[in-house]
Amino acid sequence: MKLSFIGLGVMGYPMAGHLKKAGHDVCVYNRTTEKAQAWAKEYGGSYAPTPADAAQNADVIFVCVGNDDDVRSVIFGENGALSATGANAILVDHTTTSALLAREINEACIAKDIKFLDAPVSGGQAGAENGALTIMIGGEPETYSNVEPILNCYAKKTKLLGPAGSGQLAKMVNQICIAGVVQGLSEAINFAQRSGLDADAVIEVISKGAAQSWQMENRSSTMIKNEFDFGFALDWMIKDLGFALDEGDKNNIALPMTKLVDSYYKEIQKNGGGRWDTSALITLLNKK
Amino acid sequence: MKLSFIGLGVMGYPMAGHLKKAGHDVCVYNRTTEKAQAWAKEYGGSYAPTPADAAQNADVIFVCVGNDDDVRSVIFGENGALSATGANAILVDHTTTSALLAREINEACIAKDIKFLDAPVSGGQAGAENGALTIMIGGEPETYSNVEPILNCYAKKTKLLGPAGSGQLAKMVNQICIAGVVQGLSEAINFAQRSGLDADAVIEVISKGAAQSWQMENRSSTMIKNEFDFGFALDWMIKDLGFALDEGDKNNIALPMTKLVDSYYKEIQKNGGGRWDTSALITLLNKK
Repeated sequence: MKLSFIGLGVMGYPMAGHLKKAGHDVCVYNRTTEKAQAWAKEYGGSYAPTPADAAQNADVIFVCVGNDDDVRSVIFGENGALSATGANAILVDHTTTSALLAREINEACIAKDIKFLDAPVSGGQAGAENGALTIMIGGEPETYSNVEPILNCYAKKTKLLGPAGSGQLAKMVNQICIAGVVQGLSEAINFAQRSGLDADAVIEVISKGAAQSWQMENRSSTMIKNEFDFGFALDWMIKDLGFALDEGDKNNIALPMTKLVDSYYKEIQKNGGGRWDTSALITLLNKK
Repeated sequence: MKLSFIGLGVMGYPMAGHLKKAGHDVCVYNRTTEKAQAWAKEYGGSYAPTPADAAQNADVIFVCVGNDDDVRSVIFGENGALSATGANAILVDHTTTSALLAREINEACIAKDIKFLDAPVSGGQAGAENGALTIMIGGEPETYSNVEPILNCYAKKTKLLGPAGSGQLAKMVNQICIAGVVQGLSEAINFAQRSGLDADAVIEVISKGAAQSWQMENRSSTMIKNEFDFGFALDWMIKDLGFALDEGDKNNIALPMTKLVDSYYKEIQKNGGGRWDTSALITLLNKK
């Protein structure tokens, strides 16, 4: 199938690579052209100078960029993908955005007989590289069925969760859970350390029971060692929690802990820790 | 070995039963004698009218009662276990108490040549019944080695974590983690429901990734159905978080989220929900 992939960051680069390796005809676009050239050289696909050129004649156009403004630019902007997307093509946005933007893109697509899915991912860089992403999807069932086999080139799990915007809302649910888990784990590890316990030993024993979490299994040892230079940058977490808090404000949904943790992340970001992994929440407690 | 078990609640009753089934000579004490009689009838052990009588001549005395005052009463009180415990016997307290009380009991035991372990458990009623508890232990390595084979009658995992009080501190670490996980999960599920998502479907997809937790796997479906009449009563969680918050205050350890969640639990308790499972945190959000 003729595919287009827009955005070759740490996620998009290997994702587009999986599509090419699966035998599809893939044309990529990236803001920094050198990255697109490197990709084309590595995987043997083609690259285009604008999103519109990349989208031209594509059956499915994938987008995976940074934030709402980036998505608007590559989809709606001058030489944006929508200007060149043909009727009956499918547009899939893997960027984590506001639900509002997902619905807005969907409306614009409907007007041009284009199908749209909002499809934010989780699983991080490792998930993208190993083709083991989880994808939360909003859109029409038929569109989902058509795209699902292609998504499986880089996903271990995909699920349609409702109409346009539902993928983004589900991603917010994911991030709200993580905020609570990581803050609890931070207070717990800090408490253990300051109480004179061997935090690794305590985590080993409590990780068998009701306190267990993915974050405990994958982040506690680095938290104990004060290592945060890896993983999911809290700059991105602040962006994602912002979407959740905006939705909450708009619809009168109480998110008190999420609000608290968001303020902690912003404090760390202000102090220069924006690229640290989300588990860096513990650094605020260490200082007190 | 000659063992004594004091406190036949939903935890102690089956725990003492496992000791008897393993072939030990077990004498039990319970405040309500009928429970002790029922236990003796079910397992074929003996029961005593006071903690002192139960502790008489025992090699190891186990305690598993409600709170600090209950522990003080059965250990230090008139006809308490310590009054009849022989030198070189071992006292094991499975109650979740303050670290202060654990250290106090330890001092009293040292003065009488008795060995002491604080050994709070996790795993709930099911863990006690199935012999699959996790036990966090404070005390001397030699004492731990002597008791470990007996603990394995009802534990799947035991670990010595430091001197007297360390088991209690580790249990606090466990409860702090749970507070964060459950509050995050509550806000997330409530957000999903109010945003019109199928919360079960969202949980299914996000439970494969970084938001995963034991609580998500074991409590989200009942939270979605508003069922809380089971599990670990939040009355007990308030007791446990109180110990952690006291330790935090005393040692200047920041526990902001724990404090917030504790206040939510107290609000639910005040409204009559004290016997509900800890996952009932979501009910506060539902009302808003």
